[in-house]
Formats: sequence, structure tokens, C-alpha cells
Amino acid sequence: MDSLGFIGLGVMGQPMALNLRKAGHPLGVYARDPAQSAPLLAASAVSHATPFALAQASDILFINVSDDAALEAVLFSTDGAATGLRAGCVVVDMGTSSPTHTRQLAARLGEREIDLIDAPVSGGQAGAISGTLAIMAGGADAAFQRVLPYFQVMGGNIVHVGDCGAGQVAKACNQIVISAALLGVAEAFTFAVRQGVDAAKVRQALLGGSAYSRILEIHGHRMLDGQFKPGFKARLHQKDLGIVQAEAHAAGLALPSAALAAQMMNALVGNGDGELDSSALIKVIQQLNGIAP
Amino acid sequence: MDSLGFIGLGVMGQPMALNLRKAGHPLGVYARDPAQSAPLLAASAVSHATPFALAQASDILFINVSDDAALEAVLFSTDGAATGLRAGCVVVDMGTSSPTHTRQLAARLGEREIDLIDAPVSGGQAGAISGTLAIMAGGADAAFQRVLPYFQVMGGNIVHVGDCGAGQVAKACNQIVISAALLGVAEAFTFAVRQGVDAAKVRQALLGGSAYSRILEIHGHRMLDGQFKPGFKARLHQKDLGIVQAEAHAAGLALPSAALAAQMMNALVGNGDGELDSSALIKVIQQLNGIAP
Repeated sequence: MDSLGFIGLGVMGQPMALNLRKAGHPLGVYARDPAQSAPLLAASAVSHATPFALAQASDILFINVSDDAALEAVLFSTDGAATGLRAGCVVVDMGTSSPTHTRQLAARLGEREIDLIDAPVSGGQAGAISGTLAIMAGGADAAFQRVLPYFQVMGGNIVHVGDCGAGQVAKACNQIVISAALLGVAEAFTFAVRQGVDAAKVRQALLGGSAYSRILEIHGHRMLDGQFKPGFKARLHQKDLGIVQAEAHAAGLALPSAALAAQMMNALVGNGDGELDSSALIKVIQQLNGIAP
Repeated sequence: MDSLGFIGLGVMGQPMALNLRKAGHPLGVYARDPAQSAPLLAASAVSHATPFALAQASDILFINVSDDAALEAVLFSTDGAATGLRAGCVVVDMGTSSPTHTRQLAARLGEREIDLIDAPVSGGQAGAISGTLAIMAGGADAAFQRVLPYFQVMGGNIVHVGDCGAGQVAKACNQIVISAALLGVAEAFTFAVRQGVDAAKVRQALLGGSAYSRILEIHGHRMLDGQFKPGFKARLHQKDLGIVQAEAHAAGLALPSAALAAQMMNALVGNGDGELDSSALIKVIQQLNGIAP
């Protein structure tokens, strides 16, 4: 039986790791903040003092940190995990990173005969808790098959999208689609209100037709209530759209809608709302039009 | 029992009228093109020579024509329906019109004590055939209640959104949401392809998470197959976004995503693809980036 390790016990990572533990897998964890690891230790996970120590005890190391820099630090800083891992181990990056960085990381780990699977998720904290996340995986097939049983504990819709980085590409696509949907719903509701029409009734009408989306249903509801408790934080969505912009720039690719969404998300974060759910994007459209939220 | 009339037996109107007739309601029709009325006459609907003659025989007149000008002509040209209708009749506009024109029309019909219900739909030809359309209605409650039994034959999700014009406002919102979703999906797939990743796998991964939408499922499939048989024609979506732009201009309202979608839909129609399904919007994003469709 593989020994599993998990680093990054945040809003998403903690319930994901708990689901691994509850399924009976031996699990070690590392967290700078003891409060983050406490529920895992209560479930008989083992705490390690450094990423290096955890890596030494792990066959498969799951990492779910917030950006490329944090991932780099966890793996390659002093006491980082990379040098603790043995040949044949697998690193599973479940956070959202840039496809370019992912491919570079795979090459560096490959030099030590360590496999990398990029496996970002969608579905929010609710999906993490219920073990129904969408998991978009990239990497070699043998390594994917090895970690698949663990993905099945954490996720519902698990797709091996392609080679290394393909999971991150899919996640970038996910964020493009979601941000476009958020903008569309936010503008539709703002249009309705300016026309003197009840936006809640509009949402109700649209849910039954071709306009249906999870965003209209769930995030649309948050927009109408003005309740922006995350969910998924605007600053993280901004970060993800930053990855899209950087990759599009590098590829010489024009993505007008994604660019617009990135600008609006910049404004949302710049207005001090980065800790709100990204559905708070409607506040930017309202402010643009002088409408009090 | 109300005598029903139906004008506008196109891709949507014909199956909608057929569902009314199949439910046992007496139905008269008018069509310039006999081919459009033939299936109705086969189902024992009665053909009339002019909108005026049909109106004289109708208590409730359903109209489903393609734009404000066609609606104006059906009602107010020589042999138009308006002068044929008696006080107490109801006109039900099931096409997509501008909210401003709808409110003006209601005032003009109101002078003759004729009620107007604006009741545009969403759900496409498939929804029209199966009688499961989303129907977004605006107008006085008494008139809405009078036509509700007929809506229930044609639609599944029927919402009385508000006063006169509110149905058209909801439909405009519907088109804002759908066009934003189309752009998001089109850009995501284009991003995936440029990154060397299988867009079909990306779609499959996204369908299981927060990015799920009917547009991703149905129109996303059309985009991947390059099969753009309508469905809903791009030139009609362009027309609807034109309504949104005009209303936003009149209201002094900035809707950046809707404006972008309107521009891209302009390009699609300008490129000669107006008769294709509006999911062909991906062709504009591909052309913009020099990608052969």
C-alpha cells in the first residue's frame, strides 16, 4: 500500500486529504499552521516537521498550494520535498499552476525519476468535502493509473486530459469559461435592474432554458443575495486569469473575453474585494454603472 | 373556449402552434408561405387569407415573427391584425422584440382595449417540438393568467417576470448570458488547441464541475464537431444583441461583455455565416488567431 503525503491543507486541501484518510489510506501531512493539520491528526494522519521529512515518508505526495511560487517553495526550498522523494515516487500537483511551469517542473523532477501528475480541480469546497470534485489530470499514463484510485476518493468526474500540463490547460479553460459566465450573468442582472425588472425572476426564467449554467444557478444566487462568502476567492480567480493572460501572451493568442474578464477581476481585487467569492464580479459592473450594490 | 390564432410558422412557431392544436384548441393560422401552414392544416387548423381575417376569428392571437419590423407589419400594415381584433382580445408576442418597442406596442393596443403579453422563449427548436420551452412573460396578471394554459402546452418553465416588456428584458438577459458563455467556451477550446491539448477532453473534464452549462454541453459539442446546423441562427443572435446594445445605449448602461459578444457576432454574420448556428462564433475566434476551422 502506498504511503501518501499531503501538503496544502487549506479550504480545499483539508477536506480532500480527509477523504483520502477516511478511505483508509495511510497519510502523512505537513502544515506550517497547526490549526490546518489538526482535523487530519484527529483522523490518525501523521504530522511531519518539514516537507522534506514528509517526502521521505511518502510514495505519493499530493500538493495543493495556491500558486507557482508556493509550489516551488514546497518542493525546492531548504527542507523542501524534492530531495526527500525517492525515484519512483509521484508528485501530484492539485493546485492551479501555469502549464509552462508545470512542464518545467516535470522535467526537473524527471531528472530524479520522480513522476509529476498535474491534477487541478473544480467544484469548490462543497465538492472537496463531498468527494465529487472534477479532476483534470495531465501526465504519463502509468503514473495517472497509479494515482487514479486516490483521485476516485476525492473526485467524481476524473479525466486524464493528456500529457504533462494538460490538466493545467484544462483548468485554465475552466477559469476562462467560468469568468465569461460570471460576466454574462452579472451584466444580465445589471441590465434587468436598470430596466426595472426583478433580476431574481429573470434568473428563474433563464434557469429553465439554454442559458442554464451552474454559474447562473449558484453564483447568480449569490449575486442576487449580495452574499459573497467564498466559495472561490476573487484573488485566486484573478491569479488564474493571470496565468491565462501570461500563457496567451507567450503563445501569441488573442482571447478577448478572457482578457476582459481578467481586467474586471483586477478591478474587483483592486477595490479591496479579493477575499470575496468571485461572483462579487457583479460589484464591478454595478460600480462601472454607478449602481449601489 | 378561446379561439386561438397563430402568425409566424417558422422553425419555432410551427411546432409551437402544432402543440396548441394537438392539445385540442381551435386554431387559425396565417402564413404567406403555404408550405409553412401545411402541417397545421393537416392537423385541422384553419387557414386565413390575411392577418386581419385571422384576427377577426381570434380571441387570443399568438405572433412569433423575427423582429420589431415584422411584428409591426403583421399588426399595423394594410390587412394587418390590429384592426381585426376586438376589445378584450390578447396579443401574445412570442418573438424576440425590444423592450422599448414592446411597451410602445402595448400602449397602442391598449387604446383599443387589447392586452399585450410579451412572451419570448428559450430552448430552441427541440424545446419547441417537445413543448418544453422556457417562456418569459411580461404583462398584466389577468391577461397572463388567461394565456397561461396555452403556455403550458408549449413550455416547461413558464415565468411571469413582470409588467409589459419584462419578458423581453428577460430574453435580452438570456441572450447576454448565452453569448458570454459561447465566447468563453470558444476561447477556452481555442486556448486548449493552441496548447496542443485535446479540446474534447477539456470539455469532458469541465462538464463535471462548476463550468457546466448547457452551452458547454450542446454548443460546445457543435464547436468541436464543426457542425453548425441551426439550432439558433447567428443572424438572429446578432439581431438580439443589437436590441441589447440599443437598450443599453438608450439607458446609458455599459455592458462590456455583451458589447464584445455583439462585435464578434457582427464579424460572424459579416463573414457570411449568419445562417449557421450561433455556436459558429468559435470561427471568429479561430480566424482572429489565424487558426483554420
